[in-house]
Amino acid sequence: MKTTETLARFVVGYDSARIPQAVRHQAIRSLVNWSGCALGGARHPAVENALAALRPFIGPAQASIIGRRERVDALHAALFNGISSHVLDFDDTHLATLVHPSGPVLSALLALAQCHPIDGKTFVDAIVFGIEVECRVAMGVCPAHYDAGWHVTGTAGGFGAAAAVGRALKLDETQMAWAFGIVATQAAGLREMFGTMCKSLHPGRAAQSGLSAVLLARAGFTSSTRAIEAPRGFAHVLSTAPHLADTTDGLGKEWETLANSFKPYACGLVIHPVIDGCLALKSQRSFELDEIEQISLRVHPLVLELTGKTQPVTGLEGKFSVFHSAAIALLEGVSLARHYTDEAVRDSAVIALRERVTAHPQAGIREDEAHIAVKLKGGRTIEYHVEHTLGSIERPMSDRDLDDKFRDLASDVLTPDRMEQALALCWHADTLTDAGEIGNSLMALSE
Amino acid sequence: MKTTETLARFVVGYDSARIPQAVRHQAIRSLVNWSGCALGGARHPAVENALAALRPFIGPAQASIIGRRERVDALHAALFNGISSHVLDFDDTHLATLVHPSGPVLSALLALAQCHPIDGKTFVDAIVFGIEVECRVAMGVCPAHYDAGWHVTGTAGGFGAAAAVGRALKLDETQMAWAFGIVATQAAGLREMFGTMCKSLHPGRAAQSGLSAVLLARAGFTSSTRAIEAPRGFAHVLSTAPHLADTTDGLGKEWETLANSFKPYACGLVIHPVIDGCLALKSQRSFELDEIEQISLRVHPLVLELTGKTQPVTGLEGKFSVFHSAAIALLEGVSLARHYTDEAVRDSAVIALRERVTAHPQAGIREDEAHIAVKLKGGRTIEYHVEHTLGSIERPMSDRDLDDKFRDLASDVLTPDRMEQALALCWHADTLTDAGEIGNSLMALSE
Repeated sequence: MKTTETLARFVVGYDSARIPQAVRHQAIRSLVNWSGCALGGARHPAVENALAALRPFIGPAQASIIGRRERVDALHAALFNGISSHVLDFDDTHLATLVHPSGPVLSALLALAQCHPIDGKTFVDAIVFGIEVECRVAMGVCPAHYDAGWHVTGTAGGFGAAAAVGRALKLDETQMAWAFGIVATQAAGLREMFGTMCKSLHPGRAAQSGLSAVLLARAGFTSSTRAIEAPRGFAHVLSTAPHLADTTDGLGKEWETLANSFKPYACGLVIHPVIDGCLALKSQRSFELDEIEQISLRVHPLVLELTGKTQPVTGLEGKFSVFHSAAIALLEGVSLARHYTDEAVRDSAVIALRERVTAHPQAGIREDEAHIAVKLKGGRTIEYHVEHTLGSIERPMSDRDLDDKFRDLASDVLTPDRMEQALALCWHADTLTDAGEIGNSLMALSE
Repeated sequence: MKTTETLARFVVGYDSARIPQAVRHQAIRSLVNWSGCALGGARHPAVENALAALRPFIGPAQASIIGRRERVDALHAALFNGISSHVLDFDDTHLATLVHPSGPVLSALLALAQCHPIDGKTFVDAIVFGIEVECRVAMGVCPAHYDAGWHVTGTAGGFGAAAAVGRALKLDETQMAWAFGIVATQAAGLREMFGTMCKSLHPGRAAQSGLSAVLLARAGFTSSTRAIEAPRGFAHVLSTAPHLADTTDGLGKEWETLANSFKPYACGLVIHPVIDGCLALKSQRSFELDEIEQISLRVHPLVLELTGKTQPVTGLEGKFSVFHSAAIALLEGVSLARHYTDEAVRDSAVIALRERVTAHPQAGIREDEAHIAVKLKGGRTIEYHVEHTLGSIERPMSDRDLDDKFRDLASDVLTPDRMEQALALCWHADTLTDAGEIGNSLMALSE
């Protein structure tokens, strides 16, 4: 089995005319979603602290730190944008593997595009190959890999970043295989880091590793050409049960990029069906908030296991509270990133409603499903059933939904004009003469 | 078990007055050996290619690339010096784990010392903590870790680099634990890369990762404080049989730094007893080369398994040929780095002698042992038995031997005056006001 060479040949040799339009559009949707997430995370302490630590070592001002004013060398831009785009836990997810594809891919690729001219069509092609390879590599080692404790976004991410950059720079097949070798031997990221800033370091490092791997390979820095499948290579060393046929079977015919999903709400995926249902109930306007006696949720057992925090005190804890999330949706009628701040979880109106929420695990309910019963003071009960939550494969976010999410995340960072300009550039990425423009448009300028 | 916190407390809290003088001296010997190796590797294509690839992204001229004229930012200096110091496979080895401690530790620490003032005493202390922690972390996961395919210098290396830099920068205990977390979640390096330039990338990346981890932790970039021992942490994810008591038991009382060994010859360790014996025979001057009919070696079985190449064509192949190595020793009376070039292995006199060498594996012979029988044309046979080769724990290289090795490696790169000056600075590291001077002295200048 020649997994590494097969992937390398796919990335450098596949005719882009054969990429289905739906796949290209999904790549652009990934760009819109990623850009919004990076804007929203740009001022997070993880980014601030990393920048403060590494500032003395930064090279020429080649590429943007999204949502900020600083321009830095492309390798550091890849790192910082990888961190900011993941730090809100709001980026895209390939549900079959739990890999978050865009952080590594786009952080590396956009940084490259700002220091090396790349036209929009090549840029969108490169996103496709990046996401596709990252998901495919993850599929070859998961779930055993993830279960063992690897954060697959950190480990498979480097392959995605290298594929995107390698495609854009038109590596030859051997160079591309070497680049995969160079990222394979830097693949890392432990799930022990969840809940710390290191979680978002993983896509940052993967982006940086993928970008530098391509540059190294292109300069003749040699590696194994069997890095994925060799007995002492990536798959066997980092997974007890690799199944590499899943990495290469159907490559270029079936597209995992189409299975990339976007999160509408800034909290754990398992709470999404509940939020979705509460928003639907709110929009029906069939009761007033002060009529509510109790809100009873029937949910997948994981919901309470992962997000059962009844009395969150910090914004971060709010993301792990199905109770807070339900209350916000019913109270506000929207669920936005700003609803997961320390202030929001301590708001007395939120707390009053939150205390009326109960949640009950129920076998047989799917992860993207929920049942909500609102018991009113008069005795009436209003029920709502979410068959598939927004953001699931069956009910993806619309382009309009992605616009709304982008604006929610961008509004604190970009002026309204610049926000709309950046959004338009992302949607029209395919037609740009210089894809690096997108990076410029995502910078925060003083105006 | 609080392995991570125990190591962190050791690094930041241990009174340096308690470090035995022999341990400090061994740290200095490690510095001399590492400096020579980095000088010898400075012009290797791995370094040239990495520098060509990454040059556009390099930051301010803060630190030396050893053996070259370029000054680069400290993080890149750590990377390049980590590569050059390992690329000849001539650096130090902790025989119990096969970790090569100095590449990560000294590449990170010297780069720091060139952009942040560190006195010589603190510098030598930091080497001790770096080497000690790197060996200790390796001991907690090896041999299962290495056997599974991990290049332990890449994985444990980051901990060593972080320990050295963290000690020098006087981190507090939490920061030091976070720094260990940050390197733990970047720990990587596959044995599949052996024979490619990526092998030497491992200590380079470990050095870079350790240095940046300390800077990140100091700036408040959070991590787990249980990164080594947690169920989804370093030891359990990267080893099927961790035994972390070996990481912490006797810490600060028994010193693994004393078990750090140095290689006298620029080839695989298993050939060293044969070279050692051939050099001894040559120095006895009891026969002429043209009298030799056959040279018969009795060796540990691994010798033929790893270095059984009878007709090497490249210098690299020569390092994996016990036949070439024996011939060189008998012919030249010394065994130096320059005897493993393409020219050397194609030399007709070397080939003529090489073809008279036979090697026989023998059970019961130790890895540091060899038996050599030289049959002369007149019928006489001269025998020599190597009980423990030079460079073994039982028969370590002397300081004088290390001087000779340094000069062999440095002579193509530094002028004689600068070579002696650099060597003197290394030996007197403990007394320097500014340890960064060592970095300056190891640069190649045009004169």
